[in-house]
Amino acid sequence: MEYRSLGKSGLQVSALSLGSWLTFGKQITDEVAGQLMEIAYEAGVNFFDNAEIYANGQSEVVMGNLLKEKNWDRSSYIVSSKLFFGSSQAKPNQKGLSRKHIMEGCHAALKRLQLDYVDLLFCHRPDKNTPIEETVWAMNHLIAQGKVLYWGTSEWSASELMEAYLVAEKYHLIGPTMEQPQYNMLVRDKMEKEYLHLFKHYGLGTSIWSPLASGLLSGKYNQRMPTDTRMNTDGLEWLKERTLQEQWIEKTCRLTELAAKTGVSMPVFALAWCLKNPNVSTVILGASKTAQLQENLQAIEAVKQLTEQVLEEVEQILQNKPEQPQF
Amino acid sequence: MEYRSLGKSGLQVSALSLGSWLTFGKQITDEVAGQLMEIAYEAGVNFFDNAEIYANGQSEVVMGNLLKEKNWDRSSYIVSSKLFFGSSQAKPNQKGLSRKHIMEGCHAALKRLQLDYVDLLFCHRPDKNTPIEETVWAMNHLIAQGKVLYWGTSEWSASELMEAYLVAEKYHLIGPTMEQPQYNMLVRDKMEKEYLHLFKHYGLGTSIWSPLASGLLSGKYNQRMPTDTRMNTDGLEWLKERTLQEQWIEKTCRLTELAAKTGVSMPVFALAWCLKNPNVSTVILGASKTAQLQENLQAIEAVKQLTEQVLEEVEQILQNKPEQPQF
Amino acid sequence: MEYRSLGKSGLQVSALSLGSWLTFGKQITDEVAGQLMEIAYEAGVNFFDNAEIYANGQSEVVMGNLLKEKNWDRSSYIVSSKLFFGSSQAKPNQKGLSRKHIMEGCHAALKRLQLDYVDLLFCHRPDKNTPIEETVWAMNHLIAQGKVLYWGTSEWSASELMEAYLVAEKYHLIGPTMEQPQYNMLVRDKMEKEYLHLFKHYGLGTSIWSPLASGLLSGKYNQRMPTDTRMNTDGLEWLKERTLQEQWIEKTCRLTELAAKTGVSMPVFALAWCLKNPNVSTVILGASKTAQLQENLQAIEAVKQLTEQVLEEVEQILQNKPEQPQF
Amino acid sequence: MEYRSLGKSGLQVSALSLGSWLTFGKQITDEVAGQLMEIAYEAGVNFFDNAEIYANGQSEVVMGNLLKEKNWDRSSYIVSSKLFFGSSQAKPNQKGLSRKHIMEGCHAALKRLQLDYVDLLFCHRPDKNTPIEETVWAMNHLIAQGKVLYWGTSEWSASELMEAYLVAEKYHLIGPTMEQPQYNMLVRDKMEKEYLHLFKHYGLGTSIWSPLASGLLSGKYNQRMPTDTRMNTDGLEWLKERTLQEQWIEKTCRLTELAAKTGVSMPVFALAWCLKNPNVSTVILGASKTAQLQENLQAIEAVKQLTEQVLEEVEQILQNKPEQPQF
Repeated sequence: MEYRSLGKSGLQVSALSLGSWLTFGKQITDEVAGQLMEIAYEAGVNFFDNAEIYANGQSEVVMGNLLKEKNWDRSSYIVSSKLFFGSSQAKPNQKGLSRKHIMEGCHAALKRLQLDYVDLLFCHRPDKNTPIEETVWAMNHLIAQGKVLYWGTSEWSASELMEAYLVAEKYHLIGPTMEQPQYNMLVRDKMEKEYLHLFKHYGLGTSIWSPLASGLLSGKYNQRMPTDTRMNTDGLEWLKERTLQEQWIEKTCRLTELAAKTGVSMPVFALAWCLKNPNVSTVILGASKTAQLQENLQAIEAVKQLTEQVLEEVEQILQNKPEQPQF
Repeated sequence: MEYRSLGKSGLQVSALSLGSWLTFGKQITDEVAGQLMEIAYEAGVNFFDNAEIYANGQSEVVMGNLLKEKNWDRSSYIVSSKLFFGSSQAKPNQKGLSRKHIMEGCHAALKRLQLDYVDLLFCHRPDKNTPIEETVWAMNHLIAQGKVLYWGTSEWSASELMEAYLVAEKYHLIGPTMEQPQYNMLVRDKMEKEYLHLFKHYGLGTSIWSPLASGLLSGKYNQRMPTDTRMNTDGLEWLKERTLQEQWIEKTCRLTELAAKTGVSMPVFALAWCLKNPNVSTVILGASKTAQLQENLQAIEAVKQLTEQVLEEVEQILQNKPEQPQF
Repeated sequence: MEYRSLGKSGLQVSALSLGSWLTFGKQITDEVAGQLMEIAYEAGVNFFDNAEIYANGQSEVVMGNLLKEKNWDRSSYIVSSKLFFGSSQAKPNQKGLSRKHIMEGCHAALKRLQLDYVDLLFCHRPDKNTPIEETVWAMNHLIAQGKVLYWGTSEWSASELMEAYLVAEKYHLIGPTMEQPQYNMLVRDKMEKEYLHLFKHYGLGTSIWSPLASGLLSGKYNQRMPTDTRMNTDGLEWLKERTLQEQWIEKTCRLTELAAKTGVSMPVFALAWCLKNPNVSTVILGASKTAQLQENLQAIEAVKQLTEQVLEEVEQILQNKPEQPQF
Repeated sequence: MEYRSLGKSGLQVSALSLGSWLTFGKQITDEVAGQLMEIAYEAGVNFFDNAEIYANGQSEVVMGNLLKEKNWDRSSYIVSSKLFFGSSQAKPNQKGLSRKHIMEGCHAALKRLQLDYVDLLFCHRPDKNTPIEETVWAMNHLIAQGKVLYWGTSEWSASELMEAYLVAEKYHLIGPTMEQPQYNMLVRDKMEKEYLHLFKHYGLGTSIWSPLASGLLSGKYNQRMPTDTRMNTDGLEWLKERTLQEQWIEKTCRLTELAAKTGVSMPVFALAWCLKNPNVSTVILGASKTAQLQENLQAIEAVKQLTEQVLEEVEQILQNKPEQPQF
């Protein structure tokens, strides 16, 4: 396993990590979940990603039980949670980024995970109804109380992140360490354009989600389109339009051929491509089967197949390289 | 129920809330208190207001027992306390806003309430004998310790609040989130003039008390004057003069007619009038009978009866609209 | 002459000072103006007060010419101006407290006064349309440029002053040194109540205007009422009501008798009363005749006549001592 | 003329203003330029906009001569310049936002304009090669020296502006007051989406350019397409594609009909539409003929024709209303 710094922080995170999203407490049995964690941990994965909303808290419950069962040294792994959505029946103050929900949400997550602290706590979305001061303060209080080690964001804009740094600077507090954006061959703008200044000047780390574009880049839809329903729940809302879908399926077919030429499977190819971006701290894998996880873990090794020339061919196929700003 | 932000904070507070003042542990049995809380909570009220001085701490004891009994999700409601007066036999350091009393008073309130934290902690009055730095720091320590989520003031002047913001700015601390002023058709200057700059530029929230002017605006004195004694204990000290009282009773009679025309009772009319002010975050209701509370909760619906024209007629009767500063 | 510190600053200001308001360039000839300045300066007065709006700038022109003519050592006296009202035909940006008007208004005043700098520059009123940051910054720029030595305010509320201190603190700038409020036996609230905290904790100095309540306390209206017109222009708008006027004339008659008993004239008595307040840094005199100024300068000596007992009798007559806040 | 605050600043800017771009010192004679300024000033326009790059500095030379000739009171108008592009033959350090170019560029602009200070100085574009600290500091030095009253930006992203606020906060400096973005019926995202948070929470003001989309919205191309060349120089680079052009011409034809129904010409309609946006501080007009300017100045009056219903019809035609962020 390769380890990378989480942005400018001192934390070392495995380049591939495991998320509980859509699987733990939902699609898979707790037994399979345990096997997945075992495989990952044995392969050197040290980061396990969660959120309060994943399976309405059940993902965290399952992972908490497994961590207790495995009884690995607490200092050997990193666990996260994310706050914002609350649960599916959230009342006022049971969601968002107010101090009340951050405090109560963190306590609830720790309880579900049966942990004293999470290593990473993410603001799962920006909250237009809470001044960012309140959120930055609350995160710092949790750090001061020892319940959180590093705080970050997910799907925030560059200007929202910049405001978080501003507020942290203003109050002499700790700013965000990492952001969790979607990133894959289809969705590139944030990682390759919008956040560039933050990577260079503010040392932002990233734990990226959906590296396979909700499975599209695994090649499994090469023959058959996903239904709109599936796409909506998986974060592919932007790909609803049929023409666009067809274009992407076609590109994925060509990428699959290219991957085969380099000797790796399509999903491994797509994951390795994400790992090539030095601003990616870790790529979060989801898996519902052990074989799938074992395959995807090969992405670390596959990175070396991605020569300059292969990457150039990828760009030829994708035709979506973000333009850099003129000034 | 309607929910409003508590000033610029991320906290959502029900537009009507329930206070324990004069009733819990005093005028009413614990059984009635429990019924009142049940009715309020079912109607969507999420804020329950207390102070250390209310019934010498007994109001908090009663509410604490009831919250334990009800076993509602802690994140579904907001509880407050207020420090300053201590108890009726307070020795030196058992009152005021020194760090000692704020720390000790908060712990005592939490014990009476059987809670780990209060959502809101108010400085019940300004304390000329304690530097404001000491108070602002103490409140921030309690927030850092997780015992208080938001701190505020009650019956502070604009310049005292401004100084609290100054001190918070100076030491990079969290300033006051909310103020609890008296506000009703008879007492308008603070809410409609003095605090305007704080609302606009500092995002001050408000939880207003005495929306019915100690019952005067309920119409219950329309036929018969309250005794001086009652008025003093209820915060109507300024209305001691007989001529003034007579004027106000007469105005209330006219308001009662106007309320009837719009189809609502006088107390509901007076409460809805308070709710119309967008700088009111929540109106604290007191009640000694369940029927009274049920009636008053209708104020949310009654707001829509207060058309521009009705409000204009109210001003014609009141003749006390605060003049805005010339510059 | 007695000299007092201007608040907590190092500047020594004569307890009596001379203002150009209503007289210089307006009611009196330049010759008389010159005689008044000569008398004042000889008596030890070291502060000469102006504003851009006084006689539409003409007061400053006259005083500038006289200062040039007298050729006194620049370091032996203090000159002020005040910005806010612009001139009587002010266009947008030619009035108020924006950086533009403060810069341009200061330059224009310096030109009229034929000076390189004013010792004191006042914000003549608060400006609701300009953020206080902008004003505090602009004043500090002028200080940095050597065009102003101390900046202050006139007729600001305690909370507006507090905000000025807050902003100065926030940006590490110089806050207001002095305020110029109306103060006399009839108008006491700001000096004796509202500003107390600022005097004690922020070291605010004061140069008070209208110590004779636009002449009412000189005793000249004891026999005959001023017309409404005169009162309006002189800042006695609040005294328009006839009953109120009659009450005050009657009180002034009684004060005149008391003054006579202590051996001083009524105006001298009223001025000495102002000087007794230790929070008054200087009392600004206006005069249209040399004899009047010579008489009023005796107030310094007259202060010693104001024994505890005399002051007590004054309170008996005035019946307007501001109540101190309970908390 | 209507006057608006430039963001949260105390500066009052006429809702319509006059820019020298493409005309002064280039398309028009100095005589026409003088007539345009006279017409504008007489109509109440108080802001005249320039940049170092406009006609390679010649625009400023012409305007400087005219201002000297007109001899209007300096405090009655606002003049700007913009730095970044230098001149067409700029060597290293003769462009960009380094301290060197900001200082030297400002001095050169003041010399061309024959002024002691400009009211507004813009960073004409972001400069990736200069740390923003350097730029913010340089602007503050110019303000401290009295050579600039307010500084701002042009065509910066929200996150670049946020960083400017961060740096100003960090060093206790003055942040940007205004931004000059392109804004018109065709180009809406920055003004109606990206900057919203900055308008609300940071008080950013705006002086918008290209309100007629380089003439497209004047209706003059309704019959005939502009050549690509013209479009590029005028800031319509994004509209190069022929299909897109045709769509916009077609929409402009429909808008022209709607404008006629409301009784105003197409350019006046398009300008009034910009003025309806409360986050627009001023709309910069360009004109090469006096009749054109006189017509465009009617936009102030035309605003009242833009009823809710008309605006709704505009949206029906435009179909480009920016979507608000979900969170």
